[in-house]
Amino acid sequence: MQRRTFLVNTATAGAAAATAAATFPAPAISQNRREWRMVTSWPRGLPGIGTGAGRLADTITRMTDGRITVKLYAAGELVPALQCFDAVADGTAELAHDAAYYHISKAEVVAFFSAFPWGLTASELSGWIKYGGGQELWDELYAPFGIKPFLAGNTGTQMLGWFRNEIRSLDDIQGLKFRAPGNGGRVWRKLGATVVTLPGGEIFQALQSGALDGAEWVGPYNDLSLGFYQVAKYYYSPGYHEPGTALQMMVNKPAYDALPDDLKAILAHAATAANDDIYAEYVANSGPALRALVQRHGVQLRIVPRQILMAMGDAANELLADVAGIDDLSRRIVESYLAYRAAVVPWTTVGELQFLKSRELPFPHALPG
Amino acid sequence: MQRRTFLVNTATAGAAAATAAATFPAPAISQNRREWRMVTSWPRGLPGIGTGAGRLADTITRMTDGRITVKLYAAGELVPALQCFDAVADGTAELAHDAAYYHISKAEVVAFFSAFPWGLTASELSGWIKYGGGQELWDELYAPFGIKPFLAGNTGTQMLGWFRNEIRSLDDIQGLKFRAPGNGGRVWRKLGATVVTLPGGEIFQALQSGALDGAEWVGPYNDLSLGFYQVAKYYYSPGYHEPGTALQMMVNKPAYDALPDDLKAILAHAATAANDDIYAEYVANSGPALRALVQRHGVQLRIVPRQILMAMGDAANELLADVAGIDDLSRRIVESYLAYRAAVVPWTTVGELQFLKSRELPFPHALPG
Repeated sequence: MQRRTFLVNTATAGAAAATAAATFPAPAISQNRREWRMVTSWPRGLPGIGTGAGRLADTITRMTDGRITVKLYAAGELVPALQCFDAVADGTAELAHDAAYYHISKAEVVAFFSAFPWGLTASELSGWIKYGGGQELWDELYAPFGIKPFLAGNTGTQMLGWFRNEIRSLDDIQGLKFRAPGNGGRVWRKLGATVVTLPGGEIFQALQSGALDGAEWVGPYNDLSLGFYQVAKYYYSPGYHEPGTALQMMVNKPAYDALPDDLKAILAHAATAANDDIYAEYVANSGPALRALVQRHGVQLRIVPRQILMAMGDAANELLADVAGIDDLSRRIVESYLAYRAAVVPWTTVGELQFLKSRELPFPHALPG
Repeated sequence: MQRRTFLVNTATAGAAAATAAATFPAPAISQNRREWRMVTSWPRGLPGIGTGAGRLADTITRMTDGRITVKLYAAGELVPALQCFDAVADGTAELAHDAAYYHISKAEVVAFFSAFPWGLTASELSGWIKYGGGQELWDELYAPFGIKPFLAGNTGTQMLGWFRNEIRSLDDIQGLKFRAPGNGGRVWRKLGATVVTLPGGEIFQALQSGALDGAEWVGPYNDLSLGFYQVAKYYYSPGYHEPGTALQMMVNKPAYDALPDDLKAILAHAATAANDDIYAEYVANSGPALRALVQRHGVQLRIVPRQILMAMGDAANELLADVAGIDDLSRRIVESYLAYRAAVVPWTTVGELQFLKSRELPFPHALPG
């Protein structure tokens, strides 16, 4: 088991947070009005995540009647896309909206608060965070950095990705040039793929030129707009690597702790409402996008063969053990997640999965013409 | 196609609402503080729905810093359990938390805003309401009664129910004495069962005495506490009749319309947060409850045979046509729901269902001892 030291020493981080609190610039307050900055990892108006972050910012402003007026910054406008964590920790921004797994350089275990291979779906993850002990562990993980985290959105189950050719066996993966970040990418690498990480905006050209054989992005709602179907015809599921990718709202903890109780409650419930709202936007728009991909653009849907899924499962298990071995808090988070998972999966299987299977039966469900 | 006249004449209802607005008692206001009553259909503290309604009331009070102080009334404390709709319409209460399908006597089509056989799951329904045109139709349906509706919770996929004996063929359903309300009950009746509607608190004794052969209630989290496993050993899925039962928050429309914008936003987002929060409570607690039923109480899980599911699908289709035929608004609601459903089901099938199936593969997913 490989020990790693991604998580900074807690005592040092605690001191850093205390310093941050002491030097935290006084927020712009005039007659009890605050102007807060929300940085995001998203291009402005990107469907789902970008539009959702915009609604979250507006919602806080509206519910507080401007006592917290939130100004939204798209990726790169105040800080680079992947530096939201540092920006909230050091008070550059009071708020951020992004995904926890962008910050595995702070602690590998953050991935469990967004998505992990063969982990929890969107609704299962909300259950763990709110009623399964997840929030307390998440608070403990982020507190040394001076950040208070909230669940604030979900993309739902993602797709495995786009492929120029069909994937029929493990042999087809050897040397496959595939774009996949994070733990999904690590699984592909263990199976012999050549894994590349590219920003979303560069994927199309790399597929077109043949520099990539395939690429993972999100799902139909986001993928349609990037036009991948023009250069790769095979669209694979299941997206085992991201069964329900959660988004997070981070709040600078000294700023949060200084708020009166009503504003604290508004921030918490604005995030929870966004958790529901952004997921709803993805669900509602993914169906029509999938239909357009298949019916208008000739995309071929495929399911990964069982032999490959089994190998991916083994690889994911190795990752799990690696993360749990890093330190005590990582182990406690992984153990809590797995214990919850062991209890919830049988219920999802008996309840929702049996329903979804029954809905595949060939009976009509439509009004008579 | 059977025409019905459940929906009151719109002009009459509009006049009634106008009268209600004119005679609406001035809310208790002191220094801009309102005391609002929230009636519910739930016993106080009932797991999931009762606890969730309590949190929703407290959340509104807390986010508004008491400008709207919500007093919660359990079923029967201010009005009977099933009279929340009338109570909000006539201003007896400003708020209510219950399920839309309790009010099919107002309009059969309300069922589509809680659950319909082989309809939408929890996340699919949220997508329809928020991003598929559902909210606008719901507003139109309730406006003549002077009510503003919000989605405010979900139980997730329910179970088909408890049976004293196994159900192996359509013959086993002839004369079966089964407790099932609403459209679920209508399907059972079409298949030859003798359908009974009993309050939840009377189910146990009826099963014990043999007055019932089986009964539908909710799912493991609620069913465990009522002890049905002591008198019926077979627990069936799928709960095709309630794939994701939504709860609603109703607001007296004249009172809502008179609120300043920040309080309107707080009410809307408190409901949306409850939609996420109550569902999370059900998901997190159903797994451990299912485990206790099976491992500690010897409950036998069963899946309804395909032949019976197919017959139930035909029966549900007849109900659909009945409701759509009632009037213009009913038809528009059913058509919107079905058009959305036709687009979203393929996505759920390709995305979430394929993932859930892959999670059933026999690979270990646990830390090495």
